[in-house]
Amino acid sequence: MITQKTLTLPVYSRGIHLVTNLIVNELGNLPEVGLVNFFMKHTSASLTINENADASVRTDFQNFIDKLIPDNTSYFTHKQEGKDDMPSHIKHSFIGTSITIPISNGKLNLGTWQGIFLCEFRDKAKNRTIVITIYS
Amino acid sequence: MITQKTLTLPVYSRGIHLVTNLIVNELGNLPEVGLVNFFMKHTSASLTINENADASVRTDFQNFIDKLIPDNTSYFTHKQEGKDDMPSHIKHSFIGTSITIPISNGKLNLGTWQGIFLCEFRDKAKNRTIVITIYS
Amino acid sequence: MITQKTLTLPVYSRGIHLVTNLIVNELGNLPEVGLVNFFMKHTSASLTINENADASVRTDFQNFIDKLIPDNTSYFTHKQEGKDDMPSHIKHSFIGTSITIPISNGKLNLGTWQGIFLCEFRDKAKNRTIVITIYS
Repeated sequence: MITQKTLTLPVYSRGIHLVTNLIVNELGNLPEVGLVNFFMKHTSASLTINENADASVRTDFQNFIDKLIPDNTSYFTHKQEGKDDMPSHIKHSFIGTSITIPISNGKLNLGTWQGIFLCEFRDKAKNRTIVITIYS
Repeated sequence: MITQKTLTLPVYSRGIHLVTNLIVNELGNLPEVGLVNFFMKHTSASLTINENADASVRTDFQNFIDKLIPDNTSYFTHKQEGKDDMPSHIKHSFIGTSITIPISNGKLNLGTWQGIFLCEFRDKAKNRTIVITIYS
Repeated sequence: MITQKTLTLPVYSRGIHLVTNLIVNELGNLPEVGLVNFFMKHTSASLTINENADASVRTDFQNFIDKLIPDNTSYFTHKQEGKDDMPSHIKHSFIGTSITIPISNGKLNLGTWQGIFLCEFRDKAKNRTIVITIYS
């Protein structure tokens, strides 16, 4: 059985944000066993799973990825929308477009330290829409 | 319900190529709601989703990944097949082996600016085979 | 139909390890056609698919990722658990939390040269638990 819903997230500033609770609250009743796919309908933001307990992980992550794929990369030509545009697209493909999480005993089967991160790569962020598909 | 097909792509040159239409044309009738997984059966090419409108995104992406993971990396030892071989394998794991896309209203539910990219990392490229699995 | 099991792997040293056989042996009888998702319940280890024949790929991969995301990155603040902790989290999001593989003719439909790698990013590694979800 497949169920699907669309979720529009609030606007987040450029950075890495823990959104586990926000997303879990939208899921409603889950099947006993299954899988859920969260698909980001944008090319300059990503979802990823990482350490949920210490906010310094998010800060260090952001600083690292901003230095690895810098806004001021001299040879980028895709820059009509600003110097953060092309780096955002590259970050998107490195981190990915969707995440898949198993459902067990009616809950997301995340490890103790796993949380869902929204990675907002743009300076002037917009609402981001994700498609949630649950199959069981 | 699960359906599956194998698709062999034409040979592409080293670089990033927009293949959305080519792939969508192979899908045939889709279910109303579901998910589709595209799995690359190779370790030196990848599929990813990114900005479909401006070809400069593909060029900038290629230039960036070629500089980040350069062919002339001095300490690589896996180089019998050429200096582009080991970088291709690393790029593959960074970008990934498969992508999953939701199906809604009988179509791939991609965002307005989302397209499917074939990333061909080898100089002497070959036909690439992907396995398409649709579940609904 | 969905079936699910949890697999706890033996402890591996920091590095990249070929675990295809170990994992396939745990799968038991597979359906004729389907998909299987392998989900890592940790934030400092990953699964990826890459070249299975030449062990030098694993060594070169490890050396590259250790230089790209170095333990001695000066500005990391998340380091109570050691200097390898924050790099491990970043590597996890770059390589990913789960992999999905098609099942065809009752077997994992991997390409000839594709194998499953366990990427253990920590110096003092622990047992890693993965959730295997098979749908058909």
